Amino acid sequence: MAGYNGHNEDNDFMHRLRHSTAHVMAEAVLQLYPQAKLAIGPAIDAGFYYDFDLGKDEQGRPKTFAPEDLAEIEKRMRQSIAAKKPFNCREVSADEARQLFQGQPSLAEEGAEHHRVLVRQALAHGLHAPVVRPGRAVVDAEDNRRVSHINRQQHGSTYLLRGCMVSSPSSPNPFSLQREKGSKAQDAFKLMNVAGAYWRGDEHNPMLQRIYGTVWQNKKQLEAYLARLEEAKKRDHRKLGKDLEIFVFDEEVGPGLPLWLPRGGVLIEELERLAKEVEDRAGYVRVRSPHLAKEDLFLHSGHLPYYAESMYPAMELEGVRYYVKPMNCPFHHKIFAARPHSYRDLPLRLAEYGTCYRYEKSGELFGLMRVRSMQMNDAHIYCAEDQFEQEFMAVIDLYLHYFKLFDIEKYVMRFSTHHKRGLGKKYIDNERLWLKTEDMVRRAMTNGGIPFVEQADEAAFYGPKIDVQVWSAIGREFTLATNQVDFAQPARFDLRFTNREGQEETPLCIHRAPLSTHERMIGFLIEHYAGNFPAWLAPEQVRVIPITDAHNEYAYRLAERLSAAHVRVEVDAGQERMNAKIRSAQLLKVPYMAVVGEQEAQNNTVSLRKRDGSRQDGMAVDAFVALVQERVATRAKEL
Amino acid sequence: MAGYNGHNEDNDFMHRLRHSTAHVMAEAVLQLYPQAKLAIGPAIDAGFYYDFDLGKDEQGRPKTFAPEDLAEIEKRMRQSIAAKKPFNCREVSADEARQLFQGQPSLAEEGAEHHRVLVRQALAHGLHAPVVRPGRAVVDAEDNRRVSHINRQQHGSTYLLRGCMVSSPSSPNPFSLQREKGSKAQDAFKLMNVAGAYWRGDEHNPMLQRIYGTVWQNKKQLEAYLARLEEAKKRDHRKLGKDLEIFVFDEEVGPGLPLWLPRGGVLIEELERLAKEVEDRAGYVRVRSPHLAKEDLFLHSGHLPYYAESMYPAMELEGVRYYVKPMNCPFHHKIFAARPHSYRDLPLRLAEYGTCYRYEKSGELFGLMRVRSMQMNDAHIYCAEDQFEQEFMAVIDLYLHYFKLFDIEKYVMRFSTHHKRGLGKKYIDNERLWLKTEDMVRRAMTNGGIPFVEQADEAAFYGPKIDVQVWSAIGREFTLATNQVDFAQPARFDLRFTNREGQEETPLCIHRAPLSTHERMIGFLIEHYAGNFPAWLAPEQVRVIPITDAHNEYAYRLAERLSAAHVRVEVDAGQERMNAKIRSAQLLKVPYMAVVGEQEAQNNTVSLRKRDGSRQDGMAVDAFVALVQERVATRAKEL
Repeated sequence: MAGYNGHNEDNDFMHRLRHSTAHVMAEAVLQLYPQAKLAIGPAIDAGFYYDFDLGKDEQGRPKTFAPEDLAEIEKRMRQSIAAKKPFNCREVSADEARQLFQGQPSLAEEGAEHHRVLVRQALAHGLHAPVVRPGRAVVDAEDNRRVSHINRQQHGSTYLLRGCMVSSPSSPNPFSLQREKGSKAQDAFKLMNVAGAYWRGDEHNPMLQRIYGTVWQNKKQLEAYLARLEEAKKRDHRKLGKDLEIFVFDEEVGPGLPLWLPRGGVLIEELERLAKEVEDRAGYVRVRSPHLAKEDLFLHSGHLPYYAESMYPAMELEGVRYYVKPMNCPFHHKIFAARPHSYRDLPLRLAEYGTCYRYEKSGELFGLMRVRSMQMNDAHIYCAEDQFEQEFMAVIDLYLHYFKLFDIEKYVMRFSTHHKRGLGKKYIDNERLWLKTEDMVRRAMTNGGIPFVEQADEAAFYGPKIDVQVWSAIGREFTLATNQVDFAQPARFDLRFTNREGQEETPLCIHRAPLSTHERMIGFLIEHYAGNFPAWLAPEQVRVIPITDAHNEYAYRLAERLSAAHVRVEVDAGQERMNAKIRSAQLLKVPYMAVVGEQEAQNNTVSLRKRDGSRQDGMAVDAFVALVQERVATRAKEL
Repeated sequence: MAGYNGHNEDNDFMHRLRHSTAHVMAEAVLQLYPQAKLAIGPAIDAGFYYDFDLGKDEQGRPKTFAPEDLAEIEKRMRQSIAAKKPFNCREVSADEARQLFQGQPSLAEEGAEHHRVLVRQALAHGLHAPVVRPGRAVVDAEDNRRVSHINRQQHGSTYLLRGCMVSSPSSPNPFSLQREKGSKAQDAFKLMNVAGAYWRGDEHNPMLQRIYGTVWQNKKQLEAYLARLEEAKKRDHRKLGKDLEIFVFDEEVGPGLPLWLPRGGVLIEELERLAKEVEDRAGYVRVRSPHLAKEDLFLHSGHLPYYAESMYPAMELEGVRYYVKPMNCPFHHKIFAARPHSYRDLPLRLAEYGTCYRYEKSGELFGLMRVRSMQMNDAHIYCAEDQFEQEFMAVIDLYLHYFKLFDIEKYVMRFSTHHKRGLGKKYIDNERLWLKTEDMVRRAMTNGGIPFVEQADEAAFYGPKIDVQVWSAIGREFTLATNQVDFAQPARFDLRFTNREGQEETPLCIHRAPLSTHERMIGFLIEHYAGNFPAWLAPEQVRVIPITDAHNEYAYRLAERLSAAHVRVEVDAGQERMNAKIRSAQLLKVPYMAVVGEQEAQNNTVSLRKRDGSRQDGMAVDAFVALVQERVATRAKEL
């Protein structure tokens, strides 16, 4: 798995291995480029990186690594790992640290006497901090991370890092812990590429050279990872999205605002049809709300100020400020409030594929995964407290239904709770209700037998939530669905229903989006299926290919027949030869190709070629139409 | 018809009649309130009004008419009309005019010597202008309207108006021209109501008293009109929209931004389903575009600056200005441009129910008819010039198809062309292309045998258009559909296709919206059907009414059966008596009520009551389900 999450032993080990390899790389670079200075070198997903300052060239530009330099560095690293030299973990005083790191960025300039100040300053500058109290590691109370000093003195280089690379002094070399002993530790890593990176990510700072690498428990794992990377590149939704004519971005429209081409329009409509069917059965009703509203609404909901930095700025009109909506909730609350309700109306499940607009920084935009316009599979369920568990679990069941349909086998439910320190800042200030609703969710999930991982300080501002991480067919991780409890907004909007006893009561609200947004879901599905959508989703389901012009008439008749059966079909009546026509259809990953020539026209058959390469000649048209209809109607996985 | 449009003889006559009655009213007011001063008194749709200044009361507030004063004024008017006194039309000099109108607003204060200055000033102040050259009427070159002086000297009052009330001196009294001589002229008008109105509509000016009246050719017509008004009040989509739980407005969301309740959601989805079916058959494909874009896009399209005043203001983000879209066109052009096209791709018909946002002044907003958010039945058809006529007429055919489905019997196609003086201002500056495309439309409409009315200076900024006015079942007029030619934007966006000869060519673009916007269409349909939607559109199609609690179980089983057949059904399992339940269903205008009791449960039948009052007891459930399904599937008009 490319994913790095949770805190089990395996993950701890992988983290130490990655971090250690970063330092082995730093050591190799210092040997080859003695003038190099070190910045930071953390473990990251599936590997590590290290930022180096190589000084400037004659023109005053920052010196860079050439791609071929990486091979040399890799070679040194292999030797170093093969030598199985121990890592020494030693704690040093501030003075000693300053002396040790003379010439390395910034530590020599740190003048503070007091160790905590020094640690803080170092951390604030993103530096590895030295251990400054002899005899034991400093534990920073705020983030509970140990700061230690590692010295591989054999190579004469010395540097600092946050968090020991080894779990105890008795197992000093993480490489010796690599599993599946058959393979050599030095064959389980690879330097991937080099990129410019600004110190602290700030373009006003000097440009550093960042080398990315990956490291695994053994060579087999490394190779599997590299193969996955290769496959992921082929499946990249940005590339396939363009090749399959699904969506485009346009400079004049703006970053993060995709335009959906006709084939993307089909995907969207099929997902909406699916959602409607599923939600109709589950008792939802659908509403529509505008994409903008007065400031008042968002002040009322608390999106202003809690969520302001993710919102597009205001439009001011006739002295009134309007905002495009970042979420549908306040509109649905207003719709709930538009009529009086009795307990018999509940649960009321208001659904809308409402398009929201959020401001993501330009640098954070990424294909369809991080966008600014979001067509959200949204709904708000208003229910009484004694209906909560059933409703909440019904949403979880919706997820599982969709995961099954889309062949999503691996997923993790992440339960995000509040943190005391955020109350009144990023969270609604009512600790009692936070604890109560968190408890309700925990109980519901436990009763339902649904495994979950709990994560503090990641809740929505109005309540706890379940996010679902899923892994695509090739193990890429995506955060898709969400299911959130809202104990704050119904009261803020004075929502009420008359209970059985004739008294007014405030409903609870569940926010949910099991199909995520069209943007993220379709991005995920493109990669998950590598563009080979099941027939029901495929933008073009059948391509009819007449062998020559003489068969065009039969081809068009066949297409009409399919079209009348609500099959999405196109005829390739071009001048190209049959094989070229088949290639065009394959490029667009059309599931069924119906080749028709003399024989087919005479016998009222097709020569069927499926996308998976299988063929069936002389198939009766009736049988073919029935096949496609059946596959589509049942949303079958197979063709 | 309430509609007042076109310039035929009938309309000219009605206009004169309305205008004359306004002056008869002014005369009556001056007799009863000698201190009153006159402002303006034009003919309007179905009648007239006149604004009066009655002076101030002791507290310094403007004096007003009480509703009972209207009866007194009406009485005087009746006498005056019955007396059949002639209207004298006399032209006077500026000096004489000043003298005559001493004490009346503003003319006495006009000091200009030159008559054209005087005329212009008077017009600029919205005043009736005096005739200032003895011997003939002044013709204002700018708006070609004659200014004349009418004096009904018999009553000692004198006032001015624009445009003579009579067509020639030989037919001086329009009341004598009222048709169907049997009825008395004095019984064919009615004063409707009184309202405050600011001078020139500006709240900084003094508040005047406006009396509205209506006048017809005879009493029968008047009564028919009043009955229509009464019916229209019952059908008012704002009232029914609330009663039928279709939509609401909310102060915090903002004016002109409706929220669609679940029952409104059904109407929207049924219209979209209809549009998709019809458009699928007509070869459209669907796309999706965001609701906002960078300023660059709208500068490119020319919406900025041509359309700026109808747009929401900019949002500025990271130094970039974004606008919410007032139209979908530039996005569709971008989608067209995203891929290369050959002549074989054309016509390419891109459809999207895209929601646009336009800034209508608060005072101009009106229910669903004038709103700020518009879910538009939009599409853009890109075609070669030789495909234009067929495509344009196919759109006209779409209209006719929808009109038939919705039982719209009366409609007028209005062909809006450019005006030379607007070139480079409100119109793209290319006279040759204006003339050419206008000619293409004129020819297409004529060849297709579609009657139309031509109207200069009402085109879109990018080309001529056909707007369709329709009349509802009770004769209220609505402007619904639109069909526009665009010869400007495809070139602006550098849209191209490769023609048969292998050369690059610019396509023409047709903008069309036969189902208008959801807002306007649903507003129209509510009034057209008086909320009695045909079964396929009805938000709730069947209400199951168990006679007592004992029949709830059977009722729910029946509802499940209907629901499985995709019928929208609800069960009224409340504690009320059967008749009260029937009344609730009637209030919501549910087409089918299925009453179920002991007998029905035993025999597996329903006691069917249709909305139109017809009944069928002991109907087998199978037959009932089949009936509803058939009516819905065929979009039948009858129940």
